[in-house]
Amino acid sequence: MRYSFAERTKAMLSSPIHFMRSLSTRESFISFAEELPAEELFPISSLEAAAAAVISKSPAALQYGEPQGYLPLREWLCKDFKERKGTDVDAGQILLTTGSQQAMDLLARVYVEPGDPVLVEQPTAPGFMQILKMQGASIVPVEGDAEGISPERLQEEVDRLKPKLLLVSPNFTNPTGVLWSLARRREVLDICKTRNVLIVEDNSYGDLHFGGIGAKAFYGGHPSLFSLDDAGKGGQVLHIGSFSKTVVPALRTGWAAGNKKLIETMIMAKQLADWQSSHFNQCLLHYLLESSTFNIHEHIQMLNREYETRLKLMTELLKRPAWKNVRYDVPGGGMFIWVKLPEALDCVALLKCSLDKGAAFLPGTLCYPNGGGSEYIRLNFTHPGRDELLLGMNLIGEAISEFTARS
Amino acid sequence: MRYSFAERTKAMLSSPIHFMRSLSTRESFISFAEELPAEELFPISSLEAAAAAVISKSPAALQYGEPQGYLPLREWLCKDFKERKGTDVDAGQILLTTGSQQAMDLLARVYVEPGDPVLVEQPTAPGFMQILKMQGASIVPVEGDAEGISPERLQEEVDRLKPKLLLVSPNFTNPTGVLWSLARRREVLDICKTRNVLIVEDNSYGDLHFGGIGAKAFYGGHPSLFSLDDAGKGGQVLHIGSFSKTVVPALRTGWAAGNKKLIETMIMAKQLADWQSSHFNQCLLHYLLESSTFNIHEHIQMLNREYETRLKLMTELLKRPAWKNVRYDVPGGGMFIWVKLPEALDCVALLKCSLDKGAAFLPGTLCYPNGGGSEYIRLNFTHPGRDELLLGMNLIGEAISEFTARS
Repeated sequence: MRYSFAERTKAMLSSPIHFMRSLSTRESFISFAEELPAEELFPISSLEAAAAAVISKSPAALQYGEPQGYLPLREWLCKDFKERKGTDVDAGQILLTTGSQQAMDLLARVYVEPGDPVLVEQPTAPGFMQILKMQGASIVPVEGDAEGISPERLQEEVDRLKPKLLLVSPNFTNPTGVLWSLARRREVLDICKTRNVLIVEDNSYGDLHFGGIGAKAFYGGHPSLFSLDDAGKGGQVLHIGSFSKTVVPALRTGWAAGNKKLIETMIMAKQLADWQSSHFNQCLLHYLLESSTFNIHEHIQMLNREYETRLKLMTELLKRPAWKNVRYDVPGGGMFIWVKLPEALDCVALLKCSLDKGAAFLPGTLCYPNGGGSEYIRLNFTHPGRDELLLGMNLIGEAISEFTARS
Repeated sequence: MRYSFAERTKAMLSSPIHFMRSLSTRESFISFAEELPAEELFPISSLEAAAAAVISKSPAALQYGEPQGYLPLREWLCKDFKERKGTDVDAGQILLTTGSQQAMDLLARVYVEPGDPVLVEQPTAPGFMQILKMQGASIVPVEGDAEGISPERLQEEVDRLKPKLLLVSPNFTNPTGVLWSLARRREVLDICKTRNVLIVEDNSYGDLHFGGIGAKAFYGGHPSLFSLDDAGKGGQVLHIGSFSKTVVPALRTGWAAGNKKLIETMIMAKQLADWQSSHFNQCLLHYLLESSTFNIHEHIQMLNREYETRLKLMTELLKRPAWKNVRYDVPGGGMFIWVKLPEALDCVALLKCSLDKGAAFLPGTLCYPNGGGSEYIRLNFTHPGRDELLLGMNLIGEAISEFTARS
């Protein structure tokens, strides 16, 4: 059998993790490359109780559900949007998906034609870029600064290309960890409004913010583009989120919130993609969120305290001699530190050497759609525990020293 | 905001269920339209025990898993392929998906270009047709008979169009319930082999077979095309299945089994589509399947006895006067009876009338990609209980009588 795959498969790459495995001779290594939450912080006992209650209560939780997703969970999300983010959303404006990745994929399937220019922040996370490539989009990176994507560069590209779509993550941009200023949020929304550019706003990391600031204060100072656009009534913003980082990833429950017309089109795509996500997982999550033994706000505060501690340890380790010529900003939230390597050190060469020693990171090159980024690496600080952090950072430090000693 | 959706969204239709709701003034009705298993037969207590065990055993079950799916569950499937179906499959040849719907969608995304002719059985299930339309395929229906798709018609279309893909379900074709003969299976495989046509074989209904015949005897007499093609070594057949009908739908666990090269390409598409299906659900299913309190073979035998009883009741009801001029074959398995209406009775007109009375079925027109089928309806017999069967068939019978009395 000679297979004749569709042309678009040529744009597909395997995941960064597989890329790394291909570079490594080892079976396992300490990984700062992935986007994993800490499993020792999962709310295990509450989940166990919720699973028992949901299964025994009614077999309906194990039957097919609605393609749009379990209504009580969508209503819970509306309540949470209102209470924590001051955003008025209707349950009809929400589609539950298999993680935020599927929310982005469904949007791309209904909105992006082959050849369409799509603007993304530079650097940007590799996961969503793969989706855009598969749809045949022409990915156009737009540089930014410490306040977010550059409005001048954005305006230029919008005028030049008349793109249909802009993809951003204003709350702790992946990989840089930048938290956009309020002024920048307004500017970007205004530019897109005047030129009919749909914005996909990924808020997968927004709840992970440090410094002991509460959710209301955080979202008050950093309202989402979706909220600034009147929560979908403006229609300019599709807002994407997920329970993967705040509860557990394996329930694979994310969402897209936006204008009803856009959401209804995405529901049709959802039906053909997989008919619906797990109704059981959605019932389980809803039970957990409404349960008296679990308070998600306190749970997130606990996560944030713990992740901030891990971030502090990592930044301490970055002060050690081996790392002396690197540069980075300490992020106020999210899961990553974005590190600029000492001059002339290539991230892929460093990765090979680190993997031989037993430690991995995400090479910056994977975050630059059209080349570049070889001077950067992304380090995850949420998954490794204290000992792994110490050992892994030592191993990468050793690898850096080998290169810098040579030059 | 003016949305400019991708052209392909014009080919999307909402689901048949939504189509029916749009015809109905009622909020609820007895539905013979859907493809639901009976929830009163779900293995509730075994699932509850499995959930508790999986969650308490290790938080790893709640972390991200592998895009290809949980290895022990893939290995269980290989064991089951070997024991019940005599097919030698390797765990690397299996991709776990969000139901069989996603298996088909991923294959279409990596294999079908806009304009590609794709052959399907006529009539065929609406769910998979939507996928093909979204990919821009030109759907070419091929008629069949009581032994399966017609080899003469298939040969003609293969010669005429040189299609890349043929979609079939030899075990209880949805909607007709036809069980292909062994000779027909061999003929179809031979035609596709000589002309490089990839076959997607949907076995979602294969385990639901009646008459008290065991799985080994059933699959011995009706080997899958996949098995006849040396279980993927030939590369000609992608075999699709699901736990939705045999365990529960809400765990959303299906699979694609095929040649490694094809599966590896689909894994890349899976990653970008949703990164992975629920690792928790896969762990839960695996625990259940290996548990001493649950025997899936006995469970399926119980389902088959119960579903056969419901089928018998439905065929008894089809003997009532209101139904006297309909025609149908009693299927040997699956979930549906495919009924030809009395002459000049249009299924959509009948559906409107039935819905007003409070009962629904799938109109045959939805199973004909290029028009036709208005003289057929599909009745599901697995979900409605005894009382619903009696009442619903009465209501549809009344609707038929109103039409036939007029003519």
